[in-house]
Amino acid sequence: MTEHEQPPTRRRRGRPTGARAGDSGTRERILGAARGVFAERGYDKTSIRAIAKAAEVDPALVHHYFGAKEQIFEAAIEVSFAPALGVPDVLAAGPDQVGERLARYFLSVWHNPATRAPLLAVVRSAVTNETAAGVLRGFVLRRVLLKVAGELDLPDARLRAELAAAQLIGVVLVRYVLKVEPLASATEEEIVAYVAPTIQRYLTAAE
Amino acid sequence: MTEHEQPPTRRRRGRPTGARAGDSGTRERILGAARGVFAERGYDKTSIRAIAKAAEVDPALVHHYFGAKEQIFEAAIEVSFAPALGVPDVLAAGPDQVGERLARYFLSVWHNPATRAPLLAVVRSAVTNETAAGVLRGFVLRRVLLKVAGELDLPDARLRAELAAAQLIGVVLVRYVLKVEPLASATEEEIVAYVAPTIQRYLTAAE
Repeated sequence: MTEHEQPPTRRRRGRPTGARAGDSGTRERILGAARGVFAERGYDKTSIRAIAKAAEVDPALVHHYFGAKEQIFEAAIEVSFAPALGVPDVLAAGPDQVGERLARYFLSVWHNPATRAPLLAVVRSAVTNETAAGVLRGFVLRRVLLKVAGELDLPDARLRAELAAAQLIGVVLVRYVLKVEPLASATEEEIVAYVAPTIQRYLTAAE
Repeated sequence: MTEHEQPPTRRRRGRPTGARAGDSGTRERILGAARGVFAERGYDKTSIRAIAKAAEVDPALVHHYFGAKEQIFEAAIEVSFAPALGVPDVLAAGPDQVGERLARYFLSVWHNPATRAPLLAVVRSAVTNETAAGVLRGFVLRRVLLKVAGELDLPDARLRAELAAAQLIGVVLVRYVLKVEPLASATEEEIVAYVAPTIQRYLTAAE
């Protein structure tokens, strides 16, 4: 362990401010290692110790930057879901063809293997672990669903946003996890053609 | 291990025919134990040995009745998904309000904790293990999706059946796994009111 980076002598709560040069690089390194370990083993089987080992730092340094495993997972989600955070912007452009724009945007994020793999890893952890599900729920609510619902001037705004999300999540689950044909090999445009009216209705139709 | 039931002296391939009294009971006992172990540990971490131990039989007897782990999982799915096998019947009753009938039927199966728990367990295994996903894919295609598609006299029948399934699966994922409010606490009828037109359109609208 002697070659491992040691935690700062004076422990501070939360993220250090006025940090030494290299602090930000260390935090990023730990976060990158954490994402890899979470993706490989799932939330359940990931330990602070394993993350520290993968990042080649002392476990105390992991605690120093992030706190408990739950907080590290939250930070990892923040990175993995960065592309999903564009969803409210898609909506803010107005209700015209929002179903089509949103379906196309969502499918393109999942189509790209570089953005899909970390998303799938987070979904796998959330499906198998209650704590991970809770962290994901809080994140998706705060960062996506509430913002989408805020754009809707309709009754049941949150329920509508969630049903639209449910349709899109269901599609990627059948397409990329269960890999059922023909949905697994359909082009994005074939899927958009069918799914866009569904999303459009949930987000704009007063009924 | 001496108190464990021993495999028959003469090994036969497949399910024994003209079996001794009690064979069927033994098979059911192993299957029940397998479902419990799969549900608790997931597909990855389940071994034939663990199933045998839970059923209090010799591992060779598990092999004798079911073959490999994959086949035991398939048999377990068969039991867990029994309620889902009513879906084609719902469709066969005709296109009139099929979206509403199907959404209500699907949600009622998931609403009942006794039928929901084993379904969730299968989904968890499939989301985290490729082999389990393959078994579930084959089962759902053969026993549900192809039958539903067979009832549709429309282009893209299979894709339509899968998009309807994706909407319903997405709803139960957000409702029972992520537990996002208000979808988690909405009544079945509130959900049906929004989701039924989606299913109806996928399954009946020529566009």
